Amino acid sequence: MSTQLATSKTDIQQRITDLRAVLVKQDLTAIIVPSADPHLSEYLPEYWQGRLWLSGFTGSVGTLVVTANFAGLWTDSRYWVHAADQLEGTGIDLQKLAPGKPNHIDWLSEHLAEGYSVAVDGNVLSISEQDRLLDAFDANEITLITDRDILTDIWENRPALPTAKLYEHNGQFVAQSAADKLTAVRKGMSVAGASHHLLSSLDDIAWLTNLRGADVDYNPVFLAHMLIDSDKATLFVDNNKVSSAIEQGLKDSGIVIAEYDEIQQALSTLTADDLLLLDPSKVAIGTLSKMADDVGFIEQMAPSTLLKSVKSDADIEHVREAMRQDGAALCEFFATFEKRLANGERLSELDVDSMLIDVRSKQPHYVSPSFPTIAGFNENGALPHYRATPENFSYLDVAEGEGGLLLIDSGAQYQNGTTDITRVVGIGQVSDAHQRDFTTVLKAHIALARAHFPDGIASPLIDAICRAPLWQAQMDYGHGTGHGVGYFLNVHEGPQVIAYSASTPKERAMKVGMISSNEPGLYREGKWGIRIENLVVNQPVANPSETEFGDFLHFETVTYCPIDTRLMDKSLLNQIEIDWLNDYHSKVYDELKDYVKGAALEWLNERTQAI
Amino acid sequence: MSTQLATSKTDIQQRITDLRAVLVKQDLTAIIVPSADPHLSEYLPEYWQGRLWLSGFTGSVGTLVVTANFAGLWTDSRYWVHAADQLEGTGIDLQKLAPGKPNHIDWLSEHLAEGYSVAVDGNVLSISEQDRLLDAFDANEITLITDRDILTDIWENRPALPTAKLYEHNGQFVAQSAADKLTAVRKGMSVAGASHHLLSSLDDIAWLTNLRGADVDYNPVFLAHMLIDSDKATLFVDNNKVSSAIEQGLKDSGIVIAEYDEIQQALSTLTADDLLLLDPSKVAIGTLSKMADDVGFIEQMAPSTLLKSVKSDADIEHVREAMRQDGAALCEFFATFEKRLANGERLSELDVDSMLIDVRSKQPHYVSPSFPTIAGFNENGALPHYRATPENFSYLDVAEGEGGLLLIDSGAQYQNGTTDITRVVGIGQVSDAHQRDFTTVLKAHIALARAHFPDGIASPLIDAICRAPLWQAQMDYGHGTGHGVGYFLNVHEGPQVIAYSASTPKERAMKVGMISSNEPGLYREGKWGIRIENLVVNQPVANPSETEFGDFLHFETVTYCPIDTRLMDKSLLNQIEIDWLNDYHSKVYDELKDYVKGAALEWLNERTQAI
Repeated sequence: MSTQLATSKTDIQQRITDLRAVLVKQDLTAIIVPSADPHLSEYLPEYWQGRLWLSGFTGSVGTLVVTANFAGLWTDSRYWVHAADQLEGTGIDLQKLAPGKPNHIDWLSEHLAEGYSVAVDGNVLSISEQDRLLDAFDANEITLITDRDILTDIWENRPALPTAKLYEHNGQFVAQSAADKLTAVRKGMSVAGASHHLLSSLDDIAWLTNLRGADVDYNPVFLAHMLIDSDKATLFVDNNKVSSAIEQGLKDSGIVIAEYDEIQQALSTLTADDLLLLDPSKVAIGTLSKMADDVGFIEQMAPSTLLKSVKSDADIEHVREAMRQDGAALCEFFATFEKRLANGERLSELDVDSMLIDVRSKQPHYVSPSFPTIAGFNENGALPHYRATPENFSYLDVAEGEGGLLLIDSGAQYQNGTTDITRVVGIGQVSDAHQRDFTTVLKAHIALARAHFPDGIASPLIDAICRAPLWQAQMDYGHGTGHGVGYFLNVHEGPQVIAYSASTPKERAMKVGMISSNEPGLYREGKWGIRIENLVVNQPVANPSETEFGDFLHFETVTYCPIDTRLMDKSLLNQIEIDWLNDYHSKVYDELKDYVKGAALEWLNERTQAI
Repeated sequence: MSTQLATSKTDIQQRITDLRAVLVKQDLTAIIVPSADPHLSEYLPEYWQGRLWLSGFTGSVGTLVVTANFAGLWTDSRYWVHAADQLEGTGIDLQKLAPGKPNHIDWLSEHLAEGYSVAVDGNVLSISEQDRLLDAFDANEITLITDRDILTDIWENRPALPTAKLYEHNGQFVAQSAADKLTAVRKGMSVAGASHHLLSSLDDIAWLTNLRGADVDYNPVFLAHMLIDSDKATLFVDNNKVSSAIEQGLKDSGIVIAEYDEIQQALSTLTADDLLLLDPSKVAIGTLSKMADDVGFIEQMAPSTLLKSVKSDADIEHVREAMRQDGAALCEFFATFEKRLANGERLSELDVDSMLIDVRSKQPHYVSPSFPTIAGFNENGALPHYRATPENFSYLDVAEGEGGLLLIDSGAQYQNGTTDITRVVGIGQVSDAHQRDFTTVLKAHIALARAHFPDGIASPLIDAICRAPLWQAQMDYGHGTGHGVGYFLNVHEGPQVIAYSASTPKERAMKVGMISSNEPGLYREGKWGIRIENLVVNQPVANPSETEFGDFLHFETVTYCPIDTRLMDKSLLNQIEIDWLNDYHSKVYDELKDYVKGAALEWLNERTQAI
């Protein structure tokens, strides 16, 4: 979807020129254009893809800054190669974002002088981000302007907001009614002492209402805000998207609807006697633009964020079934894929993507991919967020007697669960070096998969258990080890995150029922990338052998798909690791054997043999 | 030293009564008496042991709160048994401090009403702690009074401040002159943009001046403050403690002396144009009592704290030698101890303490113990901070055919290094349960000892590597895994701390040359305690096999003393762990064999045999 907004480099130059003319006209020194929308979402509707439209850079994360004589785009190492290519010749500098290097705020603080003005559209600026800007700018007496959307003046044919209809999350997969969820959220408000609660994050709203939408790719959400007080809950949403049946269902749950753009007006009725709970990283300041200054805030994580992360036993049972379906689809994919390669067919990374969508879309309750497939062969696999496109992809070609590694990270949205799995496939004759790297990553994966950890520990603190085998070999990877995963919702959700670079507030505590990814990796620039990813559920240790040292959790692995034993150097594995692998493969076989047949069953049987 | 301040329970009652009378007279609702001094030290001179004097509780950490009708002492789980005993009958309630339970600030916020006043002597209140109190009290409109020392009015015969002479750290063990250290500190001030720097922490001052003292037990430090600007450095210290030779040496290093109590006056000369760097957790607000309100602060860790933690190669070489001496002393102790037991002698925990001091004090460059020896037999060993006293200790008695565990945690100050080691000894016939627990703790110790980790990682983040084997067995321990260790200085120093409960600011980053303890444990209440502790030095991985994933550090273990193989269940150890243990014992033998003879050499030889 996004790439349609990209255009020629001369178009980009013209847009920057037009933007500068508006800056002059409005007496502004600089403008910041982030990758964000009023909901601080990961995937943006085209209407909010101003940064892409202005810069031509298609990566999902990046911040553009334009002044009279400078244009720069800050993005992290995942996108440097890609961004350098797309920005070349546009007049926009690539600014490499990295720990310890200046970000766009540092740059502005250094280059702007007292009395200058910087504009950011308040509709795409979170409260937290505004705080960071104000901290930096106040010291230098730079003025921050957030009350205008400058792009509107220059963006002809700006795409409209999406119009997909809302639909109900299939009742057979819903364990808790919207009314009960609303009660739980109100309990959280009451504990915090809040009179009102503003929700702008789309997955929280979809979870709370048991509704889904299709306003963006990959995440089954719809554009909306919610305002909740002790006896009223209002869903602000384009009324054209809401059928009368859904409106009635909402009403029965105690939720009334209003138009999407009426949220500001609704907030303007709050008074100094009210206390508004909101998550400052999930609410745009534009949403609060009409609210009185003296309304009190309680800034904390939304109660629904934790409630949503803790899946019920019924949810987890549905997820296991979705995982069987997804695993069956993958058996079918791998059986066909390997057969076609063996037959001498020339396949590409794009073929992998389309074959995966093909097998998954035949599964019951399938809705869509849960994120863009990453199928990266050799050096492409070394780019953790690589995406093959029709303009830029590789064939899976290897020279006679040589081999390579194909990394495949993919997933789907089913009404009964969200999947996310990474496997690596050897193409041709893999080398000892391939096997050594793969086996070391496998050791890391197993270390986390079989770990026990204290109930309630902050999730970033267990990352070292996973990385220890890689660190021991003086290897590491630049991304987190695990993210939370939604239940037929966003494939990336909080509050937990297994990443040692993350801060460790109590909010990130591990609780029974959370689903996370376990995805250590290894990336050799210009050579290959490896990542082994399963989803895991926090479960209490059953039948504890010790009880005097507190409660412990462990991970139940719920992704069922063989890990390629042909890529393993068994001499690097200890018996505990070998046992884990053989137990896992035995479990995978048992879970999937009734879901596949023919060549896929044969493939499953062969790939789950004990080592 | 401390116990002399303790007295009868009726004395305690009288002191609380006297204190309440002063509260009434001064129109105060409550007083907080913390365990602290103007230097926020771990070990306090008797003059500052007001909390002990008032409550009779001898534990090193605890906070007393007294109001007209309440007296409570907050202390953590290490001291609950001990404190309950000492507080019984005094009218002071034991308040159990634990995560998620109310501390004294919470208690005061809940029980006091608007307009009430709470006093704390500003001389024993850090800036950080004052901030916490103000945060809580401002919301409830409670006034904090910090300008008076109420104890002076009621404490007859209050001990005087200590008067021990300063002495030079033996030049053969000093790698950097005080003048060079001062230059390095001034560089840190310059980076921070500070015009002045106030140091109140005694180990920082001893490190910076290359001087030592004997004002408190265990830490070879002296009471002082320092004020440093770009061309002047003043040491505020009781001038009677300073010989003319030392005064001249200081002068030659660019440091002049002033009287200890002139620091407030010196700070009163600062103006609004000055910027004063200080560590808010290491400076008491009383020290700033005469300073103008408009002087700017830079609150951060003192530059010397990091400089001090990073030992030079020369320092580490001296530490290795101190460790050989300490290890030799321990061989002698263990050989004698085991022989006396074998001969049927009845020994006690106190005998262990005196025997250890005896063997260590014969070593070259010995100064003192580095902390009170913990020799805890069976259930006493389950109290991590147990201390045997003449009034309360155990004999190492076991019934025929039975056995027990003796935990010995001890260390010494030598001019060439500070030691801290914990070993566990089996007495009589140890059981399978003893062995299983001991071996599991050993697995944790080895996991950390052989770990590699990224250069610069925040130290709390590697704690999980150590705990993983214990967590796997559903076991854990309630203290940190490792603390920083000084070089002939405090046995507990920062900034690094290997403890997952600690916050993880960048200041805790692991750097080459830091010395830490590696001391996982296991405590079964009423049964036994286990801890295996060595000191380890951060070293770069030599001859790295991989270079594209950043720099890695590993630990060089520098404590040389056998770990009792008779307590191990070899079936619980994997080959990597067995190899580590055998390598360690081979190293211990090589390092110590020329330092011991006779029975001690025989003991060393026997206890370092490979398993």
